Amino acid sequence: MRTRPLKVALLGCGVVGSEVARIMTTQAADLAARIGAPVELAGIAVRRPDRVRQGVPAELITTDATALVKRGDIDVVIEVVGGIEPARTLITTAFEHGAGVVSANKALLAADGATLHAKAAEHGVDLYYEAAVAGAIPLIRPLRESLAGDKVNRVLGIVNGTTNFILDRMDATGAGYSEALDEATALGYAEADPTADVEGFDAAAKAAILAGIAFHTRVTIDDVHREGLTEVTAADIASARRMGCTVKLLAICERSADGNSVTARVHPAMIPLSHPLASVREAYNAVFVEAEAAGRLMFYGPGAGGAPTASAVLGDLVAACRNRLAGTRGVGDSAYTQLPVSPMGEVVTRYHISLDVADKPGVLAQVATIFAEHEVSIDTVRQQGRESEEGGDEAASGKGAGRRAGASLVVVTHRAPDAALSATVEALRKLDTVRGVASIMRVEGE
Amino acid sequence: MRTRPLKVALLGCGVVGSEVARIMTTQAADLAARIGAPVELAGIAVRRPDRVRQGVPAELITTDATALVKRGDIDVVIEVVGGIEPARTLITTAFEHGAGVVSANKALLAADGATLHAKAAEHGVDLYYEAAVAGAIPLIRPLRESLAGDKVNRVLGIVNGTTNFILDRMDATGAGYSEALDEATALGYAEADPTADVEGFDAAAKAAILAGIAFHTRVTIDDVHREGLTEVTAADIASARRMGCTVKLLAICERSADGNSVTARVHPAMIPLSHPLASVREAYNAVFVEAEAAGRLMFYGPGAGGAPTASAVLGDLVAACRNRLAGTRGVGDSAYTQLPVSPMGEVVTRYHISLDVADKPGVLAQVATIFAEHEVSIDTVRQQGRESEEGGDEAASGKGAGRRAGASLVVVTHRAPDAALSATVEALRKLDTVRGVASIMRVEGE
Repeated sequence: MRTRPLKVALLGCGVVGSEVARIMTTQAADLAARIGAPVELAGIAVRRPDRVRQGVPAELITTDATALVKRGDIDVVIEVVGGIEPARTLITTAFEHGAGVVSANKALLAADGATLHAKAAEHGVDLYYEAAVAGAIPLIRPLRESLAGDKVNRVLGIVNGTTNFILDRMDATGAGYSEALDEATALGYAEADPTADVEGFDAAAKAAILAGIAFHTRVTIDDVHREGLTEVTAADIASARRMGCTVKLLAICERSADGNSVTARVHPAMIPLSHPLASVREAYNAVFVEAEAAGRLMFYGPGAGGAPTASAVLGDLVAACRNRLAGTRGVGDSAYTQLPVSPMGEVVTRYHISLDVADKPGVLAQVATIFAEHEVSIDTVRQQGRESEEGGDEAASGKGAGRRAGASLVVVTHRAPDAALSATVEALRKLDTVRGVASIMRVEGE
Repeated sequence: MRTRPLKVALLGCGVVGSEVARIMTTQAADLAARIGAPVELAGIAVRRPDRVRQGVPAELITTDATALVKRGDIDVVIEVVGGIEPARTLITTAFEHGAGVVSANKALLAADGATLHAKAAEHGVDLYYEAAVAGAIPLIRPLRESLAGDKVNRVLGIVNGTTNFILDRMDATGAGYSEALDEATALGYAEADPTADVEGFDAAAKAAILAGIAFHTRVTIDDVHREGLTEVTAADIASARRMGCTVKLLAICERSADGNSVTARVHPAMIPLSHPLASVREAYNAVFVEAEAAGRLMFYGPGAGGAPTASAVLGDLVAACRNRLAGTRGVGDSAYTQLPVSPMGEVVTRYHISLDVADKPGVLAQVATIFAEHEVSIDTVRQQGRESEEGGDEAASGKGAGRRAGASLVVVTHRAPDAALSATVEALRKLDTVRGVASIMRVEGE
């Protein structure tokens, strides 16, 4: 084994960074044996030195991240700062000074991965980012390397723990969204500002990264159709149950049927209880990959947290260090297919639509005609008088047939393009007999 | 991209080999783009040319495998022949002639992986074998690379599809072992001679490979404690149900509590229905990995079959070819910990024991004393008069209290060393009041 250590610069020392520093110290002998040379933490850049956690070597702390990555003797830079800047400039500077980079930065990779990959290639160094998607779950490497001889057609997964926790609580307790969010916040599963999670930005960044790797093309977060879960109601969850489904916030990347384009989207969807993703509880993540030869694979585990994310970072660190010693670099970017990303309107899937309608004869026929006109084929319809749902007997109670004589109509469609469905819903809203569209949810995983 | 193709020799052209040849032809452009150079099938060695499947290029077929690997212009040899010889000699010859090897040969890797790894290293070439364990499921690469910065403490999995299919049918239909095996054979899930699967040899080979990689030590199939599923009865499955469990044939690799040794074993075990492995149906495989930082990860997918196994082979082929172009080799063997493999007697787990006992006062006290003497702590005991189980009323029916006055006693223990449990059972068998030990099964996954 080489005795001169490889030098590592750590940018960021929060929940993940401090765990990386801890493991690099406590598991130093194992890391050295696996790499073939010792690794040494050469410096830790932080914004607020007063906030550095116990156990992190104080003598390594600096507030000058730029000087650290410019030192010239750094072999690998670990970036766990997050956000676009200064992370992007620091990573680029690291490449320019000959260092490989291990990053957990999904936002940056999803926004501008192509530029970073090109820079890394230009300087002949590595860019690894297993930790950017689904924490400790090996996903980037299996997609990029294990499935390199296969053709991936679909990636379908739960890649955000916060939203899965919220939906799991809603499903388990019947709670509404706000109540479940409050519980998630109290238990530390949601941040004080939960926007990135509940509006689907976090999942969309991961979807962009996964789609790019799975289909060997370029996908940025702007290409990803995104709907959060803030509109999901307890009634939606109850409807899902009646269909033998549950509701999950899914990231879905698909190759089109003709193979000439791809789509990437994040939205709440109903999936059958029999689907393995339905039983992913609490803040766990799980990703299904469908490949032509391999069939259906699933990867499951903790999608966030200091230690799990540190595990992914350190796996990448070992790879980057091994490459360094071998004088080579790992598998780089692969976007040779240049497949375009189609808009959401071209996505083909199934829909569950709840309508509030007038309780009069002919309504179903009107509604069915609208679906037919837009070539959206109906699978099942369930019609329910709203009063009777509440246990009352309209005639006996003497209620009039005025505004209260409503009913609900639940339509589940066959597979149809999203644009056709949107046009259908627009037309339905214009019907006098349709008082409102209570919910529209896609049905996946069948 | 380099235009001179990399040359590949394929040894074996059965279910997996013909699928490899097919994909190499149909996906040639994708493989070339991902590798950075075209790959060309230079020859296919088979034992029986008359049996070669349609679609396999006839002009490439040869019966002289040795001459093929000795050609000198082969970059990578794919070995999907199986068995110890001639596979071992062919692989070694390939190394000596400068070729990297991709193998799906679990038996050979589990018997003599160390020698092969040493040979590959000596000649500076690759040895990849993702397809040897759990078909298409990426497992070797995640363990070896993604978790290279973590400490794996446990690998627990269903790695044989045939036995999982049999147990799944027994569980679903109440069928006995023979009946379920017949169904598996009829549906093509079991081979005409099912010994390697049902006696656990196949799973034991995979356990040896996984344990070696997970713990960075040497484990061969001879180190693996092995029990098949031929003794599992419908009554065992019913008992498991009563405990909220199901029965699976598990491969379990563990680091000991003190970290100074490891164990590897294959046997049927009860696992709680709430455990994710309990819901692995039919011939699917799934492997749980518990690592210190990563937590609990699960990998799931088809564990066998031509196309899934070919997917794993081709992923390895892409890696070996990329390394070839880069003039490097991938991650080699890692056995630096040299942790010894402890015998089964030192494995600590829980047990479910069914005893046929005399239906007289004091039996439970006698049995409990034996457990206490061997320091095996009892969790729960369920005592049941056998006659009453059959719905009869002994007194009323006038039956005597002779040989038929039996009862069953089901004991579930706390965690105890396997040796202590074996000694307990030996002592129980000597009790006059114990007429027989109906079954002993370990309880895992809690």
